[in-house]
Amino acid sequence: MPVKTRPRNAFYAQSGGVTAVINASACGVIETARRHKDRIGKVYAGRNGIIGALREELIDTSRESAKAIAMLRYTPSGAFGSCRYKLKSLEENRAEYERLMDVFRAHNIGYFFYNGGGDSADTCLKVSRLSRKMGFPIQAIHIPKTVDNDLPITDNCPGFGSVAKYVAVSTLEASMDVASMCETSTKVFVLEVMGRHAGWIAAAGGLAAGIDNDLPLIILFPEITFNKKRFLALVREKVREYGYVTIVVSEGVRDFRGRFLADAGTRDAFGHAQLGGVAPVVAGMVKEILGYKYHWAVADYLQRSARHLASLTDIEQAYAVGEAAVHMALKGRNSVMVTIRRKPTRRYRWEIGEASLARVANREKLMPRSYISKDGFGITQRCRAYLEPLIVGEDSPEYRNGLPVYANLKKLLVKSKLPRTF
Amino acid sequence: MPVKTRPRNAFYAQSGGVTAVINASACGVIETARRHKDRIGKVYAGRNGIIGALREELIDTSRESAKAIAMLRYTPSGAFGSCRYKLKSLEENRAEYERLMDVFRAHNIGYFFYNGGGDSADTCLKVSRLSRKMGFPIQAIHIPKTVDNDLPITDNCPGFGSVAKYVAVSTLEASMDVASMCETSTKVFVLEVMGRHAGWIAAAGGLAAGIDNDLPLIILFPEITFNKKRFLALVREKVREYGYVTIVVSEGVRDFRGRFLADAGTRDAFGHAQLGGVAPVVAGMVKEILGYKYHWAVADYLQRSARHLASLTDIEQAYAVGEAAVHMALKGRNSVMVTIRRKPTRRYRWEIGEASLARVANREKLMPRSYISKDGFGITQRCRAYLEPLIVGEDSPEYRNGLPVYANLKKLLVKSKLPRTF
Repeated sequence: MPVKTRPRNAFYAQSGGVTAVINASACGVIETARRHKDRIGKVYAGRNGIIGALREELIDTSRESAKAIAMLRYTPSGAFGSCRYKLKSLEENRAEYERLMDVFRAHNIGYFFYNGGGDSADTCLKVSRLSRKMGFPIQAIHIPKTVDNDLPITDNCPGFGSVAKYVAVSTLEASMDVASMCETSTKVFVLEVMGRHAGWIAAAGGLAAGIDNDLPLIILFPEITFNKKRFLALVREKVREYGYVTIVVSEGVRDFRGRFLADAGTRDAFGHAQLGGVAPVVAGMVKEILGYKYHWAVADYLQRSARHLASLTDIEQAYAVGEAAVHMALKGRNSVMVTIRRKPTRRYRWEIGEASLARVANREKLMPRSYISKDGFGITQRCRAYLEPLIVGEDSPEYRNGLPVYANLKKLLVKSKLPRTF
Repeated sequence: MPVKTRPRNAFYAQSGGVTAVINASACGVIETARRHKDRIGKVYAGRNGIIGALREELIDTSRESAKAIAMLRYTPSGAFGSCRYKLKSLEENRAEYERLMDVFRAHNIGYFFYNGGGDSADTCLKVSRLSRKMGFPIQAIHIPKTVDNDLPITDNCPGFGSVAKYVAVSTLEASMDVASMCETSTKVFVLEVMGRHAGWIAAAGGLAAGIDNDLPLIILFPEITFNKKRFLALVREKVREYGYVTIVVSEGVRDFRGRFLADAGTRDAFGHAQLGGVAPVVAGMVKEILGYKYHWAVADYLQRSARHLASLTDIEQAYAVGEAAVHMALKGRNSVMVTIRRKPTRRYRWEIGEASLARVANREKLMPRSYISKDGFGITQRCRAYLEPLIVGEDSPEYRNGLPVYANLKKLLVKSKLPRTF
């Protein structure tokens, strides 16, 4: 009779800015792993991401009920905590990697599921390589997540579809509001959205206007150098034609010198740089030159945490990439990112794919020029065809006393086995 | 056989800032009037509010299908257009009132339904008095609407419950986001909400924290003079205890000199007053003195147009006050506002009431001190008991291609009968 070896455990961590659906990926990982207890022991989640591994603060997800884990699908934010912490290169901080390996070895970790954006793909790759070199091979699978939608190879990134839906719906609703007030009051509404380098999120504002819904929209992309004169001329034109205009501006818009509009040298009374916010800068320009009454909003975290308005497509994909990561691990895959592939069908359909991490790490996918209208202020039909399916569908959380009910985990830590060195 | 007289028509107008549910009131008025065609002829809606009456731009709602009118219940903004236009006093601009009477007489208007806040209650009263004096008596009924929740006598105002729900849900979701990032990143999140004089909307942020949901919240009310020192001490305390804090700040917060924090003398590089936004001012203070990383959001129009997240209680009340206005008119009532009365039951129940307009006009209901916690930075149990029922329930719009489907009216104008003098 062969000796039964204890199955190796899995480590799962959330990395970087969280989203409305990253917990759906966690749900996919944990539920799938639970169905393969013969092959995967426990799933430990890093408390506050990779920091949790370095500090040996591992949350034992096996202590959470099936119901609590199922609720993750409906819960925004990072349920186990995330972090902004990029591991340095091996040369710069070998001790950090060795600590990571020590912790993984101490807890018999054989699978590393890292749920994040470009930086975490890079970390994933390093962990895989180093673990092999150190004689303790770990299968590292990257689970994509980023509201910025800027990962290469994958058709889109989980997290983005829900922000896109939030921005499209908010643009529509606020535009209707302005339309009804513009005769005597506000004529220009500016909505600032995320996207420091890529304009995907801003582009989603364009979905608010459709064939049977002709809204005057102007979109300012980080990919397009801001041209104040042409911008103001278009604002005037739209206001003359429609009575109002809605401007969706990406936080990353820059002028011809490459400076962010948001900190274009404006200083407060104390000489400090103005406290961010490109929306008030754009609104102020309009007021100063054209004199129109304006309002502006900055969506900030609201856009990426709005699980109440998440896209069903996004939720399903977020779950699926978590599930697929476990399946890939079980098939012995290593150093790969789970991807979403758009099938070449007329009606939108997608499937799971994979990409080598070496091809993913540290590459950024900007909007193709063909997705931005010729004048640089709107989206093209191709862009619409790309974006639209990603926001389709709703999967509302349960509500109690008027508020959504979100998961509340116990987050019990595994007993530590190593001296506290981090 | 008695001569059958043609029933008199009704005029309905939306006034001031629109809400997520003001169209539900319009729906209540129009659907109820349609059931009493023997008594009320047509319902004409002012195009862009009272301006539409002055310009003789009357939208004939009888040209809209039953389905389109029913859809108003699900549609944010002011479907017929609203305006910020306060009629002057009779002494100052008698011609304006006479024009109004001319238009009403020309179109056989016997009922005036004015859907707005404090200013419109005042206009309503004037129209009623003047019409009687001029021998063309019009029954004027005020239908309450204001996100600010500051009308007297009525327990609450339609429009408020939905903003409150939006602010409570957004505060909850964004707080969860910050909680998951705070170990290595953002520790302070500031959400700016509406409310120039009354803190009702800001108070709703307090609903995000509950018995089984202990969130570190600080609320800044316009009713409480801002004390920077005490505020910063509390921020530090919360961050030390929880790792982060969420600050909900009303746009109307003032310092001890009575100046809005939002324009506390800060100037941009060109010497212009800073472009609004109390959130960045508060966030900047925290950064400057305590050094915490922050994010801030300004909800602006998003909060009052978010029909996708409206409160069912609010929608039902908005519809009911429209319906009741027509019933009151049919009973011969005049110069009254429809009110919402909270029944003295344990479980929240409400009924329709009425108040004389003379008691309503130009009075503002601020938050009672007993609703604000002793330290001035939170809400009390009494406040929670007041607010909570108002955000209960959901009544989601239909979605198509990922976006809510909202009413699209024809808005055909009645043929004008008078020379264009306005």
